[in-house]
Amino acid sequence: MGQYVAPVRDMQFVLHELLQVENELKQLPKHAEVDADIINQVLEEGGKFTSDILFPLNRTGDHEGCRLNQETHEVTTPKGFKEAYRQYIEAGWPSLSADPEYGGQGLPVVLNNAFYEMLNSSNQAWTMYPGLSHGAYECLHEHGTDEQKALYLPKLVSGEWTGTMCLTEAHCGTDLGMLRSKAEPQEDGSYKITGGKIFISAGEHDMVENIIHLVLARLPDAPAGTKGISLFLVPKFLPNADGSLGARNSIFCGAIEEKMGIHGNATCQINMDGATGWLIGQPNKGLNAMFVMMNAARLGVGMQSLGLTEVAYQNALVYAKDRLQMRSLSGVKAPDKPADPIIVHPDVRRMLLTAKAFAEGGRAFSYYIALMIDRELNHPDEEVRKDAADQVALLTPIIKAFLTDNGWIATSEAMQVYGGHGFIAEWGMEQYVRDSRINMIYEGTNTIQSLDLLGRKVLMDNGAKLRKFGAQVQAFVEENGSDEAMSEFITPLADLGDKVTKLTMEIGMKAFQNQDEVGAAAVPYLRVAGHLVFAYFFARMAKIALEKQDSGDSFYKSKLGTARFYFARLLPETAMLIRQARSGSASLMALDADLI
Amino acid sequence: MGQYVAPVRDMQFVLHELLQVENELKQLPKHAEVDADIINQVLEEGGKFTSDILFPLNRTGDHEGCRLNQETHEVTTPKGFKEAYRQYIEAGWPSLSADPEYGGQGLPVVLNNAFYEMLNSSNQAWTMYPGLSHGAYECLHEHGTDEQKALYLPKLVSGEWTGTMCLTEAHCGTDLGMLRSKAEPQEDGSYKITGGKIFISAGEHDMVENIIHLVLARLPDAPAGTKGISLFLVPKFLPNADGSLGARNSIFCGAIEEKMGIHGNATCQINMDGATGWLIGQPNKGLNAMFVMMNAARLGVGMQSLGLTEVAYQNALVYAKDRLQMRSLSGVKAPDKPADPIIVHPDVRRMLLTAKAFAEGGRAFSYYIALMIDRELNHPDEEVRKDAADQVALLTPIIKAFLTDNGWIATSEAMQVYGGHGFIAEWGMEQYVRDSRINMIYEGTNTIQSLDLLGRKVLMDNGAKLRKFGAQVQAFVEENGSDEAMSEFITPLADLGDKVTKLTMEIGMKAFQNQDEVGAAAVPYLRVAGHLVFAYFFARMAKIALEKQDSGDSFYKSKLGTARFYFARLLPETAMLIRQARSGSASLMALDADLI
Repeated sequence: MGQYVAPVRDMQFVLHELLQVENELKQLPKHAEVDADIINQVLEEGGKFTSDILFPLNRTGDHEGCRLNQETHEVTTPKGFKEAYRQYIEAGWPSLSADPEYGGQGLPVVLNNAFYEMLNSSNQAWTMYPGLSHGAYECLHEHGTDEQKALYLPKLVSGEWTGTMCLTEAHCGTDLGMLRSKAEPQEDGSYKITGGKIFISAGEHDMVENIIHLVLARLPDAPAGTKGISLFLVPKFLPNADGSLGARNSIFCGAIEEKMGIHGNATCQINMDGATGWLIGQPNKGLNAMFVMMNAARLGVGMQSLGLTEVAYQNALVYAKDRLQMRSLSGVKAPDKPADPIIVHPDVRRMLLTAKAFAEGGRAFSYYIALMIDRELNHPDEEVRKDAADQVALLTPIIKAFLTDNGWIATSEAMQVYGGHGFIAEWGMEQYVRDSRINMIYEGTNTIQSLDLLGRKVLMDNGAKLRKFGAQVQAFVEENGSDEAMSEFITPLADLGDKVTKLTMEIGMKAFQNQDEVGAAAVPYLRVAGHLVFAYFFARMAKIALEKQDSGDSFYKSKLGTARFYFARLLPETAMLIRQARSGSASLMALDADLI
Repeated sequence: MGQYVAPVRDMQFVLHELLQVENELKQLPKHAEVDADIINQVLEEGGKFTSDILFPLNRTGDHEGCRLNQETHEVTTPKGFKEAYRQYIEAGWPSLSADPEYGGQGLPVVLNNAFYEMLNSSNQAWTMYPGLSHGAYECLHEHGTDEQKALYLPKLVSGEWTGTMCLTEAHCGTDLGMLRSKAEPQEDGSYKITGGKIFISAGEHDMVENIIHLVLARLPDAPAGTKGISLFLVPKFLPNADGSLGARNSIFCGAIEEKMGIHGNATCQINMDGATGWLIGQPNKGLNAMFVMMNAARLGVGMQSLGLTEVAYQNALVYAKDRLQMRSLSGVKAPDKPADPIIVHPDVRRMLLTAKAFAEGGRAFSYYIALMIDRELNHPDEEVRKDAADQVALLTPIIKAFLTDNGWIATSEAMQVYGGHGFIAEWGMEQYVRDSRINMIYEGTNTIQSLDLLGRKVLMDNGAKLRKFGAQVQAFVEENGSDEAMSEFITPLADLGDKVTKLTMEIGMKAFQNQDEVGAAAVPYLRVAGHLVFAYFFARMAKIALEKQDSGDSFYKSKLGTARFYFARLLPETAMLIRQARSGSASLMALDADLI
């Protein structure tokens, strides 16, 4: 039951019409050859693969879950997952944006990102297996030695092996400075690693012959806290120099978690008992190396919720056109039927349009960041790279937290469209809600994202990065300020821009007195910032749609309607958020902990 | 893992100090003898029963779920459920507020309601078995013949038998006018009922020997639509005149649903193939009879989410005091520990206080409605009864939708306090989120509640009921307008009252032109109304707390802090909601269905 059709038309709109990706990529020597045909081909093929191969496994994977054999410590993934993965690597998908030096296709991040949206729409739990792998690839690519890269990267790029990130321990998640896993140096330059990790996604499974764990641990006499953490490469099987598999390493899955969602992905407790590993990067600089993965992972988590938002919206839309129930308040709409389809009801439309606007806004925003990453990585001008890096740094916590909050709202609204059927597993909608819930937690909770945004990205440089983005918004406002047709979008956008500026200054002043003011304001502040980004992109999209609304392609009418809905119904959240952000820390901190 | 301790102190505060229930009950001849001791004793005993007997079965019941034997059509409930039910009836709990004529204890609704909060906190899925039964009792008590009452009520009151409500069919839930189940009159005055029902909570189980189904069906030649629906009593076993069990009736559970939550409750597909039934009430007036149950059920659903809000809050609070992670932004708070307990972080407090405020506001509001029901049922003055009935009618859709939306928010925030552990089933938090989700759907979706409120309860009588409630708020505002200590509460309360008045008039005007304006505004309107009620009760509670804050009982400091948090952080939602409610139907209705 259910369906997923990749929203290729809207993806193309964002890539070609909104972001003009082809022109952008021409300025990046590495991607100058990437034209619209290549992009469209990847979207078409990606759409087929995800709809035909992965989507049918989503519900069954949730129902079946993963199973651990307690004796062999091997995990069996749900039926079909392994075969789908075989098809995935045969088609070359893992290598899409990887470095050609290691067998990659060298395509831009923005295209890989669009493909990941599809993967996540069709099957988030499955997608986490190659998704984590891609993160491990990036970390090793950036920080590994030439020897490590030569041995491991081709296997990760081809997808023959997968990777993991082993950070969390039972007593520390956010606060990695407390971690206890230990690494003892050996004479041959390797390390013996001992400790227990939890919440290791894709930590053990039957889809590939080897799993490369990237593990945080402490060297002997390492400084306390985050400055004493090193990163190690710990393979499940120790590879020989030719890449063939050697001995089984002493790293085992001790348990898999029973959890709310993403049942198809094995969330593992990983035990290491003198497991052999090798240092990645510098001693005691493990967190820095891991952050390379984590920024990409945070965008990746945003994409997970974008994917779920899109697929939940699509299904709710089909249901709302199909389900007959009650008559329209404003008069019968389907007199030949026993009742009107529920899409005639204003509140059903509100729910559908909420999901639609969150999907389309999230798509524009996330593809934009991905393009900025391409710029950051490959633009010949250092200044441009630096600007792009600043934008990525500023926007990454927003995309993670804003899109995952939105995904929670959107999947829940889409489920609500189904009435009682939404609560029934068979219809598939409740799984989207459950799966989306983890995205607000992992890779740094949304509270942590908001502190990263407000504390580190905004206040720490006195708003410099924010002002740069603001200048971009301001330029668009000025360009279009005299266009009457655009005023319904430009006026609230400009107004919100002013409010963000004032709000930021106000919080900054208060934070001088009391750092808890940052913690008190951060969560609503992040959502205000998210709306500023959405309002900016919806205004830009509306401009294109206004220009083309009489083109005969009804896509532009739909886009314009969605933008209008966004400004009328979703942007008003900022009125609440700004009040909350301004309300300060007193109402939160006044009570002793015993009185809460 | 986890805990539940009935919040007896806060319940007593609401009952004795806020609502002064004892004085109120003295005016109701039926309950004039109910004093504080009786109330407190029920709360104490109820707290023990729910914490000791039901709470331990909550997580295991979710994990195990119900099982249907396809051959016998019998359902096995999770381990321990049946035994707990035996203890429940042995202690006489089912009869708490039931009519003494049929073996009830005749205690007031307000006390039964407080007990149901505890039941739902400890185990919503289990509670639905007696909960549905109580609804069936009320319906039969109001509409049954003397003979029916004599035969069935004592068994329902004692809890020996349970009841159900069989409304929904696969093609109709909200739109009951479309239902197809048929009832053929027999010569002996009974009916043969044939049809299929879905989503029948507690529809089949092993806890009692007989189940009394109240079934909506159509008589031959009944008018189409809602005016042709009759209500029938269809027992699983046909009772003999002495109450002993006779033949097995032809009403069977065909399947139980796999669903997002409340796994411990059997949600049944019920098939009737010429099942014997008896008419309840008048032919073709079945919906009216059922509405007796549904209003109580709607309050009951609000209580379900109140219960989940409370227990989720309690557990998150324990975790937040226990879990060490990171240091406070404003300086180390627990220097002797490796990190501070997370309750030092402002945003963790925001999450906890959100749940706490939603619990305490919901408790005040729901106990108040229950007391109004006691007034409606038992006050000697007809005018007072009528006023109370108006308040109950106005406030019932609010309590259903507002408390269940709040429960969804609160359980999710409480889960978020746990970070990654929140997503893991073992910790119990994700179950509260999943269980709470159904409450926004069943007994009329929250959209339906909002249409009932705005369309039927407010606009249909030109705001008369709303004005009565508004006058009560206004009186409180005037009484306390000159009290400076109260101004932080009175000013925003008065302001919101004015805004609700204006908003109501504005929507009323627009609705003259276009009924879709009601549908477009209803959902945010209901939440605004909910905040008006909460602001009123928090202001009243704050007044008591201000008076007693130096009494040495820190409870009042806590209450005052919660009220301040509510006004600072939660009430600002109205700024968003009012904008949404005023934004009108255009942004929802402009697009053709094919362009959404």
